[in-house]
Amino acid sequence: MNLDLLISEIERKESFLCIGLDVDLAKIPTHLLDDDDPIFAFNKSIIDATHHLAVAYKPNIAFYEAYGLAGWNALKKTIEYLNQHHPKLFTIADAKRGDIGNTSSRYAKAFFEDLDFDSITVAPYMGKDSVEPFLQFDNKYTILLALTSNPGASDFQMKEIDGIEMYKQVLTVSKSWIGSENLMYVIGATQAEHLREIRDIVPNSFLLIPGVGAQGGDMGEVCKYGMNDGIGLLINSSRGIIYASKGKDFAEAAAEAAHELQQQMQAILHDR
Amino acid sequence: MNLDLLISEIERKESFLCIGLDVDLAKIPTHLLDDDDPIFAFNKSIIDATHHLAVAYKPNIAFYEAYGLAGWNALKKTIEYLNQHHPKLFTIADAKRGDIGNTSSRYAKAFFEDLDFDSITVAPYMGKDSVEPFLQFDNKYTILLALTSNPGASDFQMKEIDGIEMYKQVLTVSKSWIGSENLMYVIGATQAEHLREIRDIVPNSFLLIPGVGAQGGDMGEVCKYGMNDGIGLLINSSRGIIYASKGKDFAEAAAEAAHELQQQMQAILHDR
Repeated sequence: MNLDLLISEIERKESFLCIGLDVDLAKIPTHLLDDDDPIFAFNKSIIDATHHLAVAYKPNIAFYEAYGLAGWNALKKTIEYLNQHHPKLFTIADAKRGDIGNTSSRYAKAFFEDLDFDSITVAPYMGKDSVEPFLQFDNKYTILLALTSNPGASDFQMKEIDGIEMYKQVLTVSKSWIGSENLMYVIGATQAEHLREIRDIVPNSFLLIPGVGAQGGDMGEVCKYGMNDGIGLLINSSRGIIYASKGKDFAEAAAEAAHELQQQMQAILHDR
Repeated sequence: MNLDLLISEIERKESFLCIGLDVDLAKIPTHLLDDDDPIFAFNKSIIDATHHLAVAYKPNIAFYEAYGLAGWNALKKTIEYLNQHHPKLFTIADAKRGDIGNTSSRYAKAFFEDLDFDSITVAPYMGKDSVEPFLQFDNKYTILLALTSNPGASDFQMKEIDGIEMYKQVLTVSKSWIGSENLMYVIGATQAEHLREIRDIVPNSFLLIPGVGAQGGDMGEVCKYGMNDGIGLLINSSRGIIYASKGKDFAEAAAEAAHELQQQMQAILHDR
């Protein structure tokens, strides 16, 4: 999908919520475990209950790979369900891939063509030729890890190269890559104070913001410093929504948790 | 498997060759395409023809993900075949994964437990808590990207932080992580001149060296500067071996190409 559609959906739904589908069989309601495909059954219920409140869904691929063939199959059914029933939702394969050029092309083909995701998260460590293969697809987006929400972000991302933090080097250098108009960036919500400077470097890019809620990020702060004229933010919540209840009411509870975040977003959009 | 076994296999076979199983259906012999599972049929033939010449096999996971469920199934059959028939071979999932802690645990479980690989390649960008979950498994190894063989290595890895290149920071910092005795490192063969300094930082670690051959790295240089008392090197070749012929003699041609590299390694081991 193209960004104009994403932005118009944000405005129509008054939401820039992304829901993380990080499915752990130990955490989903036990009655679903009798289903032939409990992972897909869980995802379908969550999507059915929340699709009017969110603009994006983000399965973290690790959770599917952990279940081998069954997990891969559930992932395929989930993205097919999203694309068939909700084609205006933006889909993110949270895969954090990245390899030498001809190998990155393989990952791009797997996630953009075979699975037909709108976007994928990619790690920058291997540089330009590891990312550019992802940027060559029309209306497909590459969400580059810049500043993540975990404690390890301080190990390398916050270290200074020529007086400028590594994550800012990633933002700056990536703007020169071929197809950079298809780049978005991961910026952890726990790092909201850095968003002002980040917006100086990438004023127009969409930012995918994990870490609101469970990891302690503050939505108001993130929006204050991170929002741009085209909104430019996708705020992700995973566990806080999908595991809001472990009972038979899990989907309703997820909708309630999503609605609460959507209401905060609506208020922020009205106050602009 | 443990490192003592790997080292004794290197000495017994007089080889520290790793064969990269990067299977592309457009490049394998066409007669295999009639097989129910051409990817596995290809891998099995390559393994059968070369297992006495190599000590490690490294499927790059991208090539399997690109074929969706069929690819994932072929990967599973390949690792099962290696573990059942050649349990003394060291197996590497070239996956370049890395995510926040609880998610990295998922990847570790997928590759170390479900698929039962001996090791996995991991990207360092997200820091300590993204890597440590991989280090908590006995007799399982995490091969951290340090200095890669592609041109993009110069974008970030070679940049200096406090006067020290990023890849050296990765080597140094990672030594303090819990479970660091299970770390190995990826060092591209195209960067052989850096191996002397690398050995000053990680004298005892195994290094996985891609880029000999197709990408232009020189084996003699790599061994001169990179070898330690326990050998400490796994030199990978992928395309140069598995695509040595596209005819019905592909397995014999692969064995010949592998034998040529093994002979070079034997000579180097004798000259020590």
